[in-house]
Amino acid sequence: MSQYSTSTICALATAPGIGAIAIIRLSGEDAITICNKVFKGKDLSKVESHTAHFGTIRDGEKIIDEVLVTVFKGRKSFTGENSVEISTHGSPYIQQQVLQLLLKNGAESAGPGEFTLRAFLNGKLDLSQAEAVADVIAANSETSHELAMSQMRGGFSNEIQKLREELIHFASLIELELDFGEEDVEFADRDDLKKLVTKLNTALISLISSFDYGNVIKTGVPVAIVGKPNAGKSTLLNSLLKEDRAIVSAIAGTTRDTIEEILNINGVQFRFIDTAGLRETTDEIEKIGVDKAFEQIEKSAIYLYLFDINALSLKEVEADLSQLNTEIPRLIIANKTDLVDATKLVEFDKLNCYFISAKENNSIETLKDVLFKAVNERLVKTNDVVVTNARHHEALSKANESLNTVLEGLENNITGDFLAMDIRQALHQLGMITGDITTDDLLENIFSKFCIGK
Amino acid sequence: MSQYSTSTICALATAPGIGAIAIIRLSGEDAITICNKVFKGKDLSKVESHTAHFGTIRDGEKIIDEVLVTVFKGRKSFTGENSVEISTHGSPYIQQQVLQLLLKNGAESAGPGEFTLRAFLNGKLDLSQAEAVADVIAANSETSHELAMSQMRGGFSNEIQKLREELIHFASLIELELDFGEEDVEFADRDDLKKLVTKLNTALISLISSFDYGNVIKTGVPVAIVGKPNAGKSTLLNSLLKEDRAIVSAIAGTTRDTIEEILNINGVQFRFIDTAGLRETTDEIEKIGVDKAFEQIEKSAIYLYLFDINALSLKEVEADLSQLNTEIPRLIIANKTDLVDATKLVEFDKLNCYFISAKENNSIETLKDVLFKAVNERLVKTNDVVVTNARHHEALSKANESLNTVLEGLENNITGDFLAMDIRQALHQLGMITGDITTDDLLENIFSKFCIGK
Repeated sequence: MSQYSTSTICALATAPGIGAIAIIRLSGEDAITICNKVFKGKDLSKVESHTAHFGTIRDGEKIIDEVLVTVFKGRKSFTGENSVEISTHGSPYIQQQVLQLLLKNGAESAGPGEFTLRAFLNGKLDLSQAEAVADVIAANSETSHELAMSQMRGGFSNEIQKLREELIHFASLIELELDFGEEDVEFADRDDLKKLVTKLNTALISLISSFDYGNVIKTGVPVAIVGKPNAGKSTLLNSLLKEDRAIVSAIAGTTRDTIEEILNINGVQFRFIDTAGLRETTDEIEKIGVDKAFEQIEKSAIYLYLFDINALSLKEVEADLSQLNTEIPRLIIANKTDLVDATKLVEFDKLNCYFISAKENNSIETLKDVLFKAVNERLVKTNDVVVTNARHHEALSKANESLNTVLEGLENNITGDFLAMDIRQALHQLGMITGDITTDDLLENIFSKFCIGK
Repeated sequence: MSQYSTSTICALATAPGIGAIAIIRLSGEDAITICNKVFKGKDLSKVESHTAHFGTIRDGEKIIDEVLVTVFKGRKSFTGENSVEISTHGSPYIQQQVLQLLLKNGAESAGPGEFTLRAFLNGKLDLSQAEAVADVIAANSETSHELAMSQMRGGFSNEIQKLREELIHFASLIELELDFGEEDVEFADRDDLKKLVTKLNTALISLISSFDYGNVIKTGVPVAIVGKPNAGKSTLLNSLLKEDRAIVSAIAGTTRDTIEEILNINGVQFRFIDTAGLRETTDEIEKIGVDKAFEQIEKSAIYLYLFDINALSLKEVEADLSQLNTEIPRLIIANKTDLVDATKLVEFDKLNCYFISAKENNSIETLKDVLFKAVNERLVKTNDVVVTNARHHEALSKANESLNTVLEGLENNITGDFLAMDIRQALHQLGMITGDITTDDLLENIFSKFCIGK
C-alpha cells in the first residue's frame, strides 16, 4: 500500500453550494497539528477525542470564520487516524478560503473516496463495506437504502467471510497432503470435501442469483411502455407520476428520444421508459414495433403494452401482442375506458388485461399495485443477503466456477495439487470482495468512483 | 416575543443535494430528549456538552443511518438552548428520512432563519450581528466577507452601542430636568450638550456615508460598458473575465437584454453590465445613446466608454462623449489598437484615454488596475466600521434627522420636554439596529429572508 500517501488530506465533506453550515474534513497524522496552526481557541492537541470547540480560523491576523471544530483522535475516528471536522458558515467563499489555508499549512487535497480508502487501509471497514458507503449515499429508495445499509454494516461481508473460512479449512487439509506428498496420505476425506464444496456452491449460487434482485433494486426496475401512437402512453406516464411528484425526476435516457421517469412504488424504484420517440419513426400506423421499442422491451424487467380500447378491435390487439416478446413479463392495459361501452369491456376481458383511463386517473393505483406485485413476485429475495455490486457478482461467479472445477476434479480423482490450485483461485476471488486480497488497480478503480470528501 | 415558538425545531443545515455527509440540526428544550428517542448509542441525556457520539438513527428496529451526534447543552450552544447536530451520510434520501423521524418524535420544521432568530431572542447575538450571519454566508469576495465578518463579530454593534450610551447619558440629564420641571433647573449644560450632539452627529454621518462603500462592496460595483456597435464591448468583457473564470458567473440581469458579469478585482466585486442588447435597437449607427444605455450609466458607480480607434475620428469620439453623463466617473477606452498606426495614438492622446486591444488581450491588466484604483479612490472607507445593510442605513439617517432637530431646538432654546422627545426618537432608531428595540414585524421581515436551517 506504499503508493497511498500517509499525508494529511482535506476536503469539503458536505454538498457543494450555499447552506447554513459546511463541514471541511481533515484526516492524517498531522490533522490536529495543522488545524491547530490556523485555529484560535483551545489548544486542540490537548483536548479529548470526540469533543467540539468554538473558535476562529485565522490566516495570520485575518479572521476567516467563526467555526466549531470537532477533534477525533487516532483509531476512534472514521478513517482510523487523527481527524478534524471544521464546521464553518456555509458560504462557498469561506469553504474555499479555509481549504486554501489548510493546504498552505501542509494539508493536501483529498482524492475521490480517499477518506473511505483510508478507513479501509486502516482496517476500519472491509472493502465491500467501503464500497457500500458510496451506495448508501446514492440510495434513493427504501429498498436500495436498506440493502446498502446492510452491506455497509457488514451483513454481506460476514456471509463471504463464513464461506471463506470453511474453504480455508478445506484448503489447509489439501495443502497438508501436499506437504506429505511422498507418503500418499489423504487428510481430507474426498466425500466430505465434495459435500462441503457442494454446500458452498449452493450458497454462492444463492448469492449470485440475488444479484438480479439487488441490481434492479439498486438501479431501479426498468419498465418499457409500448403501444401504438395515441394509445395514451405519455398520459399514462404522467398519471403514474402525478401523485408522487416530490420524489420524481426526469432524467435523460441513453438516447435522446427515450426519457426515463423514476417512480417509487412501495419503496421499490421503477424506471419507466416512454417509447414516445417512436411516434416520429412510425410511418405506418398499423405497425407497433420498430427496433427501438423492441430494444426497450429487451432491457425491461417487465413491460406495459397499452392500447386505446376505442380505436382497436380485439383482433388488432391480439395481432400486436403476437409480435411482442413473450419471454419478458408484460401487463396488457386497455386505456380510455371512460369513453367505452360495457359490451366492449366484456369482449376484451379474455385478454386478461387491466382496464384504465389514464386521463381520468381511473384504476391507476390498482395498476401500480399490480406492477409492484408482478415485480416483487419475480424478484424474490432468495437470500437475506443480497448482492448489489457488479464487481462482487463477478467475483462470486468466478469463485463458483473454480469450485465447479474442484467438483469435476473430485469426480475424476485428480491429484491434490490441482485441487489446491482451484481452491486457492476461489479463495482469491472471495478475498477480492472483502479486500483481504487487493491490488492497487482494484482500489484505484473502486475509489475513483467516489466523490471527493467521502 | 410570545409569538415565537419555544418548541424544538429541526432542519437540514448543510447545502441540499448529495455530499459525503450532511448535518441535521435540532434546537429547543427537548432537542436532546427527541434525538435520544431515535438514537441508539450512548444515552445523550448523560453526555457532556460539546461531545460527539457514534451510533445509529433508528425508526423502531429499522436502521436509517450510522451517524455522529454532537450534543450542545443550554446556553453554550449557538442558539443558546439545547441543540443537537446529527451528522448523517450525505444522501437526500437519508436526510429526508431522518427529518421525518424527528418530526414524528415531536420536533417541528424550522422556519427560515429560525436558529439565528433564537440565538438573538436568547441574547447570544444582537440583531445587527444576527443579520450579518446571512451576509457572511452570502459574501463572495474578500472585502464583502471581511465587512460581514466584522459585523457578525460585533464591530458595528459596538460602535452603535457606544453612540447610544452617550446619548442615553444626555437623555437622562434632560429627563431629570423634567422631573424637577417646576423648579426651572438645568442639569444638562446646553453648550456641552450641543457639543455632544454635534459629535454624535459627526459619527452618525460618517457611518451613513460609509453605506455607499458598504453597499457597493456587498452587492458589487456596477460598471456599464457603453459604445457604438462593433466597438468591441463583448470582446472586452470576455477579455476581462478570461483570467478569472473560476470565480466568474453570468447572471441574468433585470432585463433580458442586459447581462451582468461578475469579476473580482483585488477582492472587490465588479458587476459589468454589457449593453450589448442595444445593438438591435440602434438603427442609426451614428447614435451611441439610446435610453437604455443612459439608464445603465445612471446606475453605475463608474462606466466605460469604449470605441474602435480605427473606425472613429477624434471629432466623432468627442461628440459621443459630450452626449454622455459627466457626473458619473468614466474611463475612456480606445480599442483595437493592434491595428492602428502610431500617429493616431498620438492624436487621441489628448482624450486622456486608455489604449487597449481586447482581442489581443493588450493592456487588460492595466485597465483592471485603473478601474480598481478609480473605484477605490472614490469609495474611501470613511470609517473603520462600514454600514452594509439598507435597514441600518435608514435607521442611522433617521437618528441623524432627530439629532438635527435637537440641535435646532437648542439654537431656539426650546424646552427640555421637546428636546427629550427627539432624543428618545434617536435612541429608538439606534435601538432598532441592535435589536434593543424590536417589533414582531421587524423580526419577521429580517429572518424571513434567511434560508431554512440557519
